[in-house]
Amino acid sequence: MSAIAIIIYQWYEQLGIHLTVAPFSLLGIAIAIFLGFRNSASYSRFVEARGLWGTLLIAERSIIRQLKNLLPNDVELHKRISGYLIALCWSLKHELRKTDAGYDMYRILPRHILTQVMFSPMKTNRILLLIGDEMAALREQGKLSDITFGLIDNKIDEIAHVIGGCERIANTPVPFAYTLILQRTVYLFCTLLPFALVGDLHYMTPFVSVFISYTFLSWDSLAEELEDPFGTSANDLPLNAICNTIERNLKEMTGQQPLPEPHQPDRYFNLT
Amino acid sequence: MSAIAIIIYQWYEQLGIHLTVAPFSLLGIAIAIFLGFRNSASYSRFVEARGLWGTLLIAERSIIRQLKNLLPNDVELHKRISGYLIALCWSLKHELRKTDAGYDMYRILPRHILTQVMFSPMKTNRILLLIGDEMAALREQGKLSDITFGLIDNKIDEIAHVIGGCERIANTPVPFAYTLILQRTVYLFCTLLPFALVGDLHYMTPFVSVFISYTFLSWDSLAEELEDPFGTSANDLPLNAICNTIERNLKEMTGQQPLPEPHQPDRYFNLT
Amino acid sequence: MSAIAIIIYQWYEQLGIHLTVAPFSLLGIAIAIFLGFRNSASYSRFVEARGLWGTLLIAERSIIRQLKNLLPNDVELHKRISGYLIALCWSLKHELRKTDAGYDMYRILPRHILTQVMFSPMKTNRILLLIGDEMAALREQGKLSDITFGLIDNKIDEIAHVIGGCERIANTPVPFAYTLILQRTVYLFCTLLPFALVGDLHYMTPFVSVFISYTFLSWDSLAEELEDPFGTSANDLPLNAICNTIERNLKEMTGQQPLPEPHQPDRYFNLT
Amino acid sequence: MSAIAIIIYQWYEQLGIHLTVAPFSLLGIAIAIFLGFRNSASYSRFVEARGLWGTLLIAERSIIRQLKNLLPNDVELHKRISGYLIALCWSLKHELRKTDAGYDMYRILPRHILTQVMFSPMKTNRILLLIGDEMAALREQGKLSDITFGLIDNKIDEIAHVIGGCERIANTPVPFAYTLILQRTVYLFCTLLPFALVGDLHYMTPFVSVFISYTFLSWDSLAEELEDPFGTSANDLPLNAICNTIERNLKEMTGQQPLPEPHQPDRYFNLT
Amino acid sequence: MSAIAIIIYQWYEQLGIHLTVAPFSLLGIAIAIFLGFRNSASYSRFVEARGLWGTLLIAERSIIRQLKNLLPNDVELHKRISGYLIALCWSLKHELRKTDAGYDMYRILPRHILTQVMFSPMKTNRILLLIGDEMAALREQGKLSDITFGLIDNKIDEIAHVIGGCERIANTPVPFAYTLILQRTVYLFCTLLPFALVGDLHYMTPFVSVFISYTFLSWDSLAEELEDPFGTSANDLPLNAICNTIERNLKEMTGQQPLPEPHQPDRYFNLT
Repeated sequence: MSAIAIIIYQWYEQLGIHLTVAPFSLLGIAIAIFLGFRNSASYSRFVEARGLWGTLLIAERSIIRQLKNLLPNDVELHKRISGYLIALCWSLKHELRKTDAGYDMYRILPRHILTQVMFSPMKTNRILLLIGDEMAALREQGKLSDITFGLIDNKIDEIAHVIGGCERIANTPVPFAYTLILQRTVYLFCTLLPFALVGDLHYMTPFVSVFISYTFLSWDSLAEELEDPFGTSANDLPLNAICNTIERNLKEMTGQQPLPEPHQPDRYFNLT
Repeated sequence: MSAIAIIIYQWYEQLGIHLTVAPFSLLGIAIAIFLGFRNSASYSRFVEARGLWGTLLIAERSIIRQLKNLLPNDVELHKRISGYLIALCWSLKHELRKTDAGYDMYRILPRHILTQVMFSPMKTNRILLLIGDEMAALREQGKLSDITFGLIDNKIDEIAHVIGGCERIANTPVPFAYTLILQRTVYLFCTLLPFALVGDLHYMTPFVSVFISYTFLSWDSLAEELEDPFGTSANDLPLNAICNTIERNLKEMTGQQPLPEPHQPDRYFNLT
Repeated sequence: MSAIAIIIYQWYEQLGIHLTVAPFSLLGIAIAIFLGFRNSASYSRFVEARGLWGTLLIAERSIIRQLKNLLPNDVELHKRISGYLIALCWSLKHELRKTDAGYDMYRILPRHILTQVMFSPMKTNRILLLIGDEMAALREQGKLSDITFGLIDNKIDEIAHVIGGCERIANTPVPFAYTLILQRTVYLFCTLLPFALVGDLHYMTPFVSVFISYTFLSWDSLAEELEDPFGTSANDLPLNAICNTIERNLKEMTGQQPLPEPHQPDRYFNLT
Repeated sequence: MSAIAIIIYQWYEQLGIHLTVAPFSLLGIAIAIFLGFRNSASYSRFVEARGLWGTLLIAERSIIRQLKNLLPNDVELHKRISGYLIALCWSLKHELRKTDAGYDMYRILPRHILTQVMFSPMKTNRILLLIGDEMAALREQGKLSDITFGLIDNKIDEIAHVIGGCERIANTPVPFAYTLILQRTVYLFCTLLPFALVGDLHYMTPFVSVFISYTFLSWDSLAEELEDPFGTSANDLPLNAICNTIERNLKEMTGQQPLPEPHQPDRYFNLT
Repeated sequence: MSAIAIIIYQWYEQLGIHLTVAPFSLLGIAIAIFLGFRNSASYSRFVEARGLWGTLLIAERSIIRQLKNLLPNDVELHKRISGYLIALCWSLKHELRKTDAGYDMYRILPRHILTQVMFSPMKTNRILLLIGDEMAALREQGKLSDITFGLIDNKIDEIAHVIGGCERIANTPVPFAYTLILQRTVYLFCTLLPFALVGDLHYMTPFVSVFISYTFLSWDSLAEELEDPFGTSANDLPLNAICNTIERNLKEMTGQQPLPEPHQPDRYFNLT
């Protein structure tokens, strides 16, 4: 984009079009202010999404802690519920990235549960429902009182908020008009900039205008990337690594060996 | 608006009025800062409104989950309450958009309830009251203890906060003076801009001033559109699609077939 | 103010004082940034105040809902408590606007309560205490268990937070120095502006400087108005209309006829 | 500071140093943006601190309300606990301002408690512990059930959050580097400004540069003052008045006569 | 960096490259806006991290308070749990700074617990689990009812949120692209600035450009430092001092003598 601007500019220079820096200065600062606003909006989505996944880890650890405290001897139960919770976070990841959850569900869930989950159009929510059923069964058997059932139900509810919050972020982009208007104005601004600068800067024009364009375009594209924090590009959330951390945490707490390897950054130092 | 500016400008040019860019630069940046503030204010209303509808989905799913956990065999109850919850969200949509809830209520609610709801001036709140009555009846019958009743009551309370929050956003606009002052200054600014630029830019004036005006006017109008997030224009919340999602979710959870079709974007790729 | 500036400017013009636009451009943008900050601060007070009154409506509706659910047959109780709750919101309005609550209290409260409330220096808080006493009496009589008493106590607590929050906003202005510094600089800036512009703009000076001054002064005065959201000017919260809405809601829920008329905007389209 | 700048400038003027407005314009706007950020940071500390003290009032009123509701006849208890709560807020004030709590503790607390509190290095926290002990004793005596004890414990917990939050604000300043960098750049900027302006403005330089310097310096010093909201300067929180309000509220609620006089502003209209 | 710029500039000056201030003014302001955004993002991480550690202190104090209230005579228990809580905060510090927790764990924890903790890959979480186990044992022995167990479990849950929140901040930096783009543009900007200024300022260029560069570079580096608030540089959180405060508080509350010395600032007045 900038390369083209440089080439074209050589030619326009001789056309004698009068463009001065002053109106572009005004416009550039206005665009910078709007870019700042849009980056805030995108970044706060990123932060909220990260916070939700952090809450997921916390709530899942808390459920396991509560089960271990309240029913310390039912080791089988700890393992079964930790399996459900691990499946839930992988399933949420696949739902948000619109990838196929099949392999991970197959790897983690017992067979009779697997069918029930895979046939549901809302897999993550279905797993949460199953965890609730298990807790209700414990209450039915008198292993949990209404009050201790309530304590765990609050954690399940926290997870429900995480699932709902992530779906909300994934389904509701920043109003498209923001993206559209900013992109149009930024690109047009960068295209016209060389013609405004050429009068003052002569041979330095390409260099300076590429520099300015780089600043504006990179901020614009970064805002766009962060807007959907559940993608797989370098600046998105490393959902695989987070799910791996959750899996390691829950397995460690319930004494399951071996723990999966920690997720390693790829050769570009990015986690996915 | 801009077209008129261009035409008029050709004529003023020969009038010899002295307007320079400098004061407009100052004014333009000041307006950009104020536009940034107003967009923040409008956008945060949009985000809050979206968050409230997200919470509605979460709370309604949680109520169904709790009922299924606590009273797993009372399938009729699950369906009846899910019907109320679905009616509640459609009713809230109609209330916020000031449209007639009649058809949707007729479609969803059983007959004896329908009259009671349609005659109330606060339909959504009335439906919530009915849900509470059902829970109280279950408590009266001993099917829910005080504690498990309290767990569900907390969810009903969350829904009450959503209803109240949406009403608040719908009834309290951003103070009108913000809209008024900004609109006046933005329009006047755009009208005067060509006369300030013409001295420097000559034949390029129309082009540059249209560009600058476009940036400012589109940000102003976008802020105004987002300010009322419950409207039906392209950048407002797709309440129909959200209600449809809630209906699909609750029906799936209570095993009702067939699920309604997912809401599809119209031919301009907009959801309503 | 601006009119004076125009008149004086005609005279200074011939005095040969050198003022250029550049330092005023710097100063104007700095002031715009500070005005943006102050408007954020004032507007967030407005939003918080509105949110508190929204919560008041929600919490009062929830208390009535809970009473109707838990004690469905005690219609007298519903009406009595709804009366207290309605009185509470009118009393809070009078407390915040420092007007006399006498008439409204007389209109709503039963006689034996009226004396107790009117003699208290903290009327709103006193009414809340009375509501709590009623709930405690129900608990004493065994009509509410500790747990259901706790559910309602949480709502009373929400109202306590609303009252305390409103008092806090009313008693703690934005630090006065912000108002003072901004007002001084804005007025001085607007006074000096014509002298800076006159060199460039000649006969257009009054027009442009009035325009710029208008933008700055109106933002400054709007920030000041929103700072105290409980006043009675056009951009303040329409507390009368909100109290009226609460009264209509609670009466409708408890089946009291006739509902008061909805509050209508005055002939300037303002609610009070 | 500005006076010195004016004097020196007369002398430099004849030195022929070339400083133009343009780079100072850039720098001034950058500094204004950073000042805006720092004012936001300081102001949000002020707002948070005010909110915490507001919560303190609300929570203490709620504890008294709950005690009056749950144990309506134990008037001695109401007075004793209200004494502790009043002592707690004065003690917190003294802790935050690092003044001696002795006189106020002596005035409010009974003798046997006084020693225990005055010998503790964490007086406020100690008083909270004593309130908790009283509640636990009531529970032990069967006057409070576990559930009603829990309701009051939640309020005690709110107070614990207020104490911890205030200590956090008092002990953690805005990172000192912000203060340092801004102060250095603002002062240097104001010192150099006259030399940049003198070329354009001649005899008007002192006036304009004092004006600009005033704007920047006052914003900088205001940010510094608000940063520590618990001090005693004019723009800090009026902790004495707030404590006085709390004392009046709690005494009125428990029927203690006479109420202390409301705190009056001093002759500069400031509360302390 | 700036020193180099000064030296090089002397040489370029004679090269006749035309760079004017205007485009740099536009670019500088845009960069200042983006720096303001990035500082907000970094600073809000700092504030959140500080808030989490403040909550840790509050929650740990509350657990001790609740134990003292509910089981006033079990002094051994108070000391044991306070030991666990102190160990937990030191362990969290070591986890966040990636230092070896061995010495502090050895100093605080009893031997049989020490092994269990040191062998776990998630030490802090493991200690929390142990505290939960102790509470569960008290419930098993009938010393805590379900309800009072629930009150303490809520505090344990608060600590779980603190641990999870700190891990989230430590593991998720601000998207690296922000750092990268800003650093590139700021450094390039500062390098080019002298060449743009030299035409206007001649011999004053080095001075002014060093000043401007200092402002921009220091803001950029400060944002980077605050981004990871758990480091050990001067502007990071003084975790050692906070842990020391927590230790002193809990020991004072449980009557353990002697209290550790308060942490003193080092000779540069910094806490670590």
